Amino acid sequence: MATSGQADSTDGAAGPANVVISVDAMGGDNGPATVVAGIAKSAEKNPDIRFIVHGPERELRRLIGRRRELAARCDIRHADGVVTMHDKPSQVIRSAQDTSMWSAVDSVRAGEATVAVSCGNTGALMALSMMRLRKLPGVNRPAIACLWPSRNPQGFNVLLDCGADIRADAPDLLQYAMMGASYARNGLGLERPRVGLLNVGTEEHKGRAELKLAHDLIEPAAEHGAFEYVGFVEGGDIMGARVDVIVTDGFTGNIALKTGEGTAKLVGDFLKQAFANSVMSKFAAVLAMTSLKRLQKRIDPRRVNGGVFLGLNGTVVKSHGSADATGVSAAIKLAFQLAQSGFHDRLAARVAQAMREQKQPDEAAASSSAVTGAAS
Amino acid sequence: MATSGQADSTDGAAGPANVVISVDAMGGDNGPATVVAGIAKSAEKNPDIRFIVHGPERELRRLIGRRRELAARCDIRHADGVVTMHDKPSQVIRSAQDTSMWSAVDSVRAGEATVAVSCGNTGALMALSMMRLRKLPGVNRPAIACLWPSRNPQGFNVLLDCGADIRADAPDLLQYAMMGASYARNGLGLERPRVGLLNVGTEEHKGRAELKLAHDLIEPAAEHGAFEYVGFVEGGDIMGARVDVIVTDGFTGNIALKTGEGTAKLVGDFLKQAFANSVMSKFAAVLAMTSLKRLQKRIDPRRVNGGVFLGLNGTVVKSHGSADATGVSAAIKLAFQLAQSGFHDRLAARVAQAMREQKQPDEAAASSSAVTGAAS
Repeated sequence: MATSGQADSTDGAAGPANVVISVDAMGGDNGPATVVAGIAKSAEKNPDIRFIVHGPERELRRLIGRRRELAARCDIRHADGVVTMHDKPSQVIRSAQDTSMWSAVDSVRAGEATVAVSCGNTGALMALSMMRLRKLPGVNRPAIACLWPSRNPQGFNVLLDCGADIRADAPDLLQYAMMGASYARNGLGLERPRVGLLNVGTEEHKGRAELKLAHDLIEPAAEHGAFEYVGFVEGGDIMGARVDVIVTDGFTGNIALKTGEGTAKLVGDFLKQAFANSVMSKFAAVLAMTSLKRLQKRIDPRRVNGGVFLGLNGTVVKSHGSADATGVSAAIKLAFQLAQSGFHDRLAARVAQAMREQKQPDEAAASSSAVTGAAS
Repeated sequence: MATSGQADSTDGAAGPANVVISVDAMGGDNGPATVVAGIAKSAEKNPDIRFIVHGPERELRRLIGRRRELAARCDIRHADGVVTMHDKPSQVIRSAQDTSMWSAVDSVRAGEATVAVSCGNTGALMALSMMRLRKLPGVNRPAIACLWPSRNPQGFNVLLDCGADIRADAPDLLQYAMMGASYARNGLGLERPRVGLLNVGTEEHKGRAELKLAHDLIEPAAEHGAFEYVGFVEGGDIMGARVDVIVTDGFTGNIALKTGEGTAKLVGDFLKQAFANSVMSKFAAVLAMTSLKRLQKRIDPRRVNGGVFLGLNGTVVKSHGSADATGVSAAIKLAFQLAQSGFHDRLAARVAQAMREQKQPDEAAASSSAVTGAAS
């Protein structure tokens, strides 16, 4: 049901299309027309992307067929079913074989596409991705990493976990530090990212017991993980210049993310109201238009649209459910960058290396005791 | 050492001074001159406040003596010691008897003042307040409640716990709901506040186990607690119009608070940069000055300066450590409002009532079984 095969391809003669992105056209708040419009925006900017688009074939054929330049770069994969925002993840992994979301993830599983993008139900997408792609060997809890506008020169910080799992034990937080650093290296071009552990204060005696444990695990791992560990950081550092990567559990990360988005939106709305207040201020708004647009662009959540699932055998990008064409295009751009940089293989290599290093002391101990045994 | 007695009073002939506020002049980032300037601002606006000011007598006498109208309304209590931002709470409760913070809290304990205000170390202030004022009967974990700019008609929502305790079990969250609703009634004038429990989604199956337990405890308590329970809310609701009171543990609350403050500050700074960008935008900023000032006022954290400690035998207001005179004055205004409304007695009565009601079912069951016993 999920695939109608490569035969659906509307030809690939559009030049050197190096990267294939798998896009779930359904499940977002704004329907497939918006997703296709986002694909078109991306296609226009990046001639090197090809797409596999998943959803009801007839509708997709109509939407994509309207855009001649796009049709040549899209494979359509028919899927009748749609995962809705209200579907429970536990149900979805049992019975969503016919959905566009399942099909989109399976394109990555099959190696046809490098990254999958979906605007659908986060919990369901994570559950499906875990089931179909499986966790990387050595990863206990995958995480969702988000980019956050910041005062740093690179313009963004990385926050993880933004909500893949409501729990994280100390070893999970160590893995988040490693994976977050890898993401910052490949996604933000930082050679040696600074990593901090989110807490209610920067002093070492503060916070929950598992955070002190995590602190003691992350500190000695920084050297081999090629990051700098700055210790505990606070909520005010998420958008600050003290760190590049902020590590926390998915419960706290999700609350922080939504609080930050809500606050930015509130201030933006208050700003609009302030400028609509008088004739003078309306006139001022016209004069300041360029500056205000630049501000809007800096804090526009659509520009940093895309939570990246880390710790799986394949990369999945979760776009905002309410994303418009610009938002979808931003999520695809992120997917493209990660695919081009070979991010997934680098991350997997880093995790594998960390596993070897964690094992090595034991092996060393074992072989040394073997030697001792031979000597005695 | 802490008090030099009522004899220090510079007379009370300034008219009907109904409310006495105890102010810790030390421990803030900006020193006692800023605190005294804040007291002067409040004194000017509210002729009904008298002050007991705690700190090094000579310095305070000099600072207060300069302002003739203030001198007549301030008692000075000498205290040599200062609790610094780096002092550990556990040390402070053992050895801070000579500090201005201890002295300020003790004025409430002695009944000389209705509310204490301090800009000092939050953890130390909470530990001292718990030790000197003791918890209200029936309260397990006191909480810090903060006001948050919101889309609601009253302009602010209440968030608690903002960091009194890093843990909260389900019964604690129930008490936070009761105390937060009481604060919203007395502090914001809402007859029947809407209370929500902070989680990573609004669906009942989401979130941590203790949140589901708390959900089941709070729902049936709403009727007697004179609030409306709306169920789970998300980070984006903290500043929204769906609820008036947001209940969470002190770890999550503290991270949310600092994330919100940091985001508002980031957007504000980006806005300033945008307006400094060109001659045209600078001119626009001049034209829009009134509107921009109104915006700044709406999101200015100094205006809502003051975390209120709930659940103790006495009210303590924690001002921002970095508060300037306007901030200190806002914290004193909040203390004054709470003192005038008789908030503390109302909250205590509400908690006592809840205790009786929680016991009643058992008592009713006990007496009914006694009846059954008699019958059998």
